[in-house]
Amino acid sequence: MQNTQRSSAMPIHKYRPFHEQINVHLPDRTWPDARITEAPRWCAVDLRDGNQALIDPMSPERKRVMFELLVSMGYKEIEVGFPSASQTDFDFVRQLIEENLIPDDVTIQVLTQAREHLIERTYESIAGAKQAIVHLYNSTSVLQREVVFRTDKQGIIDIALEGARLCRKFEKTIPDTKVYYEYSPESYTGTELEFALDICNQVIEVFEPTPDRKVIINLPATVEMASPNVYADSIEWMSRHLAHRENIILSLHPHNDRGTAIAAAELGYMAGADRIEGCLFGNGERTGNVDIVALGINLFTQGIDPQIDFSDIDQVKRTVEYCNQLPVPERSPWAGDLVFTAFSGSHQDAIKKGFEAMEVRAAAEGVTVDDIEWAVPYLPVDPKDLGRSYEAVIRVNSQSGKGGVAYLLKSDHAIDLPRKLQIEFSGVVQAKTDAEGGEVTSDQIWSIFNDEYLPADDSAAKWGRFELLATQTRSDMSGEVVLDVVLRDDEQQLAVAGSGNGPVAAFVEVLRAQGFDITVYDYVEHALSAGGDAQAAAYVELQVGDQRLWGVGIDGDISTASLKAIVSGVNRSIRTRQQELAAV
Amino acid sequence: MQNTQRSSAMPIHKYRPFHEQINVHLPDRTWPDARITEAPRWCAVDLRDGNQALIDPMSPERKRVMFELLVSMGYKEIEVGFPSASQTDFDFVRQLIEENLIPDDVTIQVLTQAREHLIERTYESIAGAKQAIVHLYNSTSVLQREVVFRTDKQGIIDIALEGARLCRKFEKTIPDTKVYYEYSPESYTGTELEFALDICNQVIEVFEPTPDRKVIINLPATVEMASPNVYADSIEWMSRHLAHRENIILSLHPHNDRGTAIAAAELGYMAGADRIEGCLFGNGERTGNVDIVALGINLFTQGIDPQIDFSDIDQVKRTVEYCNQLPVPERSPWAGDLVFTAFSGSHQDAIKKGFEAMEVRAAAEGVTVDDIEWAVPYLPVDPKDLGRSYEAVIRVNSQSGKGGVAYLLKSDHAIDLPRKLQIEFSGVVQAKTDAEGGEVTSDQIWSIFNDEYLPADDSAAKWGRFELLATQTRSDMSGEVVLDVVLRDDEQQLAVAGSGNGPVAAFVEVLRAQGFDITVYDYVEHALSAGGDAQAAAYVELQVGDQRLWGVGIDGDISTASLKAIVSGVNRSIRTRQQELAAV
Repeated sequence: MQNTQRSSAMPIHKYRPFHEQINVHLPDRTWPDARITEAPRWCAVDLRDGNQALIDPMSPERKRVMFELLVSMGYKEIEVGFPSASQTDFDFVRQLIEENLIPDDVTIQVLTQAREHLIERTYESIAGAKQAIVHLYNSTSVLQREVVFRTDKQGIIDIALEGARLCRKFEKTIPDTKVYYEYSPESYTGTELEFALDICNQVIEVFEPTPDRKVIINLPATVEMASPNVYADSIEWMSRHLAHRENIILSLHPHNDRGTAIAAAELGYMAGADRIEGCLFGNGERTGNVDIVALGINLFTQGIDPQIDFSDIDQVKRTVEYCNQLPVPERSPWAGDLVFTAFSGSHQDAIKKGFEAMEVRAAAEGVTVDDIEWAVPYLPVDPKDLGRSYEAVIRVNSQSGKGGVAYLLKSDHAIDLPRKLQIEFSGVVQAKTDAEGGEVTSDQIWSIFNDEYLPADDSAAKWGRFELLATQTRSDMSGEVVLDVVLRDDEQQLAVAGSGNGPVAAFVEVLRAQGFDITVYDYVEHALSAGGDAQAAAYVELQVGDQRLWGVGIDGDISTASLKAIVSGVNRSIRTRQQELAAV
Repeated sequence: MQNTQRSSAMPIHKYRPFHEQINVHLPDRTWPDARITEAPRWCAVDLRDGNQALIDPMSPERKRVMFELLVSMGYKEIEVGFPSASQTDFDFVRQLIEENLIPDDVTIQVLTQAREHLIERTYESIAGAKQAIVHLYNSTSVLQREVVFRTDKQGIIDIALEGARLCRKFEKTIPDTKVYYEYSPESYTGTELEFALDICNQVIEVFEPTPDRKVIINLPATVEMASPNVYADSIEWMSRHLAHRENIILSLHPHNDRGTAIAAAELGYMAGADRIEGCLFGNGERTGNVDIVALGINLFTQGIDPQIDFSDIDQVKRTVEYCNQLPVPERSPWAGDLVFTAFSGSHQDAIKKGFEAMEVRAAAEGVTVDDIEWAVPYLPVDPKDLGRSYEAVIRVNSQSGKGGVAYLLKSDHAIDLPRKLQIEFSGVVQAKTDAEGGEVTSDQIWSIFNDEYLPADDSAAKWGRFELLATQTRSDMSGEVVLDVVLRDDEQQLAVAGSGNGPVAAFVEVLRAQGFDITVYDYVEHALSAGGDAQAAAYVELQVGDQRLWGVGIDGDISTASLKAIVSGVNRSIRTRQQELAAV
């Protein structure tokens, strides 16, 4: 099979591969063998990186809702704004401090450029806080040096050092606030590694890290420029070379331009980082900051405590959508509307079997399903652990097979169809969905099921030709049962009798006397709920003439349910025959 | 700084880490040093994996639109359905064949389970096609073996081999169609590697690959269960051990449960794969299949021809949204509405400078900007290469600084503000956006600019206290210019004169006589377009009393423009003073 792909006319001459721009060389990398065993320190930057990327940035009220959400979920480091650049941000920081909205174990973080009037204003904004992280940044990339700052490496270092020194100076103006430092060589991914290291190490000396006052060095993929393994290599290299590494908190700040920010964060964390900055559901400039919900729940699925509460993800999502005025996409990991939904028939079937196997296993162990290991195909996490219901798990469209239909009947109506009946009924549903398109709800499936197998009401038109009006069973314990039946046969009433080894056999004899050649091939029944007064469902597979088909009956009396099921099958057979005749 | 994060109450006891489930051990991996240099073979599965995951699956008409889109973009292998499982899919495959809709260099692919009646029906569906890939799958994971199939490894192998043999048998029924084979051990990521290898190698022997008729072995991350480096390790291991490797096309099929499908595809491709299956914009069951748009454009940004045409991404997006009836998210890589948008002031400023630097460089080299390497901060790709305009690049909200405002004035109105005027004007805009919130459009910025610096119309109220009604300049070449001016001063008209070394100096003298102590600090002007009849813009920075501020004038006469700029500054000064008085 030849590859017939051909060159596109895309102007590839305009682009230079990343490795020709920045040299990242680490053949003795160790991160691919590392395993994540605990949560990183999280820093949520929704109120800064996230907020600046909104069509409609948060009002003070929305900011406060976001802050409270982040606190309630367990985030302890929260970047709350760029107070020196925006009056709104400044006022918000002041509100947090003056209204005592910051819990003692939460540290706010404020961003500032390395310029004196901005730094001064930054310290004004955090005065009175118990503690705060001052996050100083300047851009260090080759491109930004050339195009934006028009200065050499030393000029960029001077900006950073001057900023750091000014921070130390203004720190003295707020002695009651414990100030921690974070430095970001912004546009790190476009910066030569040796230069990024040099500037970080010089800044570190100014900030004088100690075990009690570690310094955060944050290495942002301001623009994601290469595959995530390259970012990981660079992080491992930096982690090996940073001065005073033991007193440094190495932080990641991936953006998602290439769609690999989550991977970059995970591989970078494996490569030695300690901390990750990002936004809920990946909000942020352009394609967004890394999604800290996905990162946290990814940990959870590996049995690692994310140290964040994701137990009501729908509520988190609603709140974020309110604050950001942007929707969380349908397929956003762990949280999107469709991510626990299986439309595929084989997936649905496997999920149903997975649920059943867990129940069996839990019962065998004498525990509940919540006590045993989660193991359901196509559902890597139990939706209930995220506060989501199973309702959305199985949805049915024209591409679905029997599994989904069967699941919905079972979960919503306790109807547990035998496998062959599942196949028959899913054909009924599929004929309908192929014709009409679109999704079929659980209610619609129930309605289709009723129309097909059960009388939706008592009208004769619904029941079909026969209807069971009264029965009486007599047994003299001889092994032979006599069944007296009053049947409606269209407009007439018939009082007829038959006998057999049980009521079903007797009823078959009754119908045979009416001209129906019936054989019962399969017979299944179950109670619809627990207790003595429960309804029972009976399913019979019949051969009626040359037709093989199923009937269903529901009744409080298990014997009557089975007779109703036979009536259901016979009526369906007659209906099908009439439809075939009408079609000729 | 202590880490104050605390345990959540999330039920981590229910989850077992991936490495305790499946052993992937490859310490001598080579993929982290690999570099991608050419496009993989692409296979688009939008019509199957994508379609089955839609709330409203594609109608025949929408399917046809999708197929034609994929063909027009350059995809040569297209999975078109599961014809044995769905009448709609069967009919669509027949339509493609019978209406001759498949170009000669395009190969359709059809999915089937390993069951005889499904395989037979599959071959009926592709009869008459020039060539087709029959994609056989069965599920192989530990969990599915236990829960769904309740059989041992040999039972699973038997299913696969029986399916493969049936394929070979029914292949003979359509001798005019060149049939190629693909085999997927479905749920591969949950399968022991040795077992996955065993079953693949046994199936390969049945399919008898040759150089002309290679066999595709597709290793799906049916559920994404681990970080993408683990998938890459497993792919490298499989690639090393597959039988007849030289005649095998090793294919990837990542899903995105953990949000790392794009990374998994890239690292897996580096690990030795040849081919990638996925969907446009990452549609597909749950969180979706891997996004083949992102993968392709990621290659493009590295100067690698994706062999797919992405030159009108908006049209592709609109078509996909029509077919899928699902939106492409705002932050979807390379294609979302917001991914080329910079709201941040410093980003906007850098982008503006990047564009300018490119123009300077192109001019210096005597070429156009399309001939030189793309290098604009925060824009890893030229939006124009994807058929997107620059209009959306810079958008302004209350978090934006001067850069965006300046960029929009320049790009939409040819107004190139001096840097200090950018700062002044962005303060004007920010005061407005801080008060009102939301995004500010380019039109609104222009309107704010006019209100602040220029007369929006000829009404006196708009102009402010002074208005230039007539001017006459006389020079006798002595170095001294005499300026006669007719000024409107509120309701009055003044005919006044002054002199200086040029009209600006003379006008300052005129105004000084009216009681205004004016000094000109800076003066910049430029034409608004090319040609002799162009309008000119003049910008003056004035000291008026104790106020430092800018004025702007636009006129066909460059001298008049500068006088208007002074009037603008003086009027603004008076207005500000009045506002201050009113506020007291």
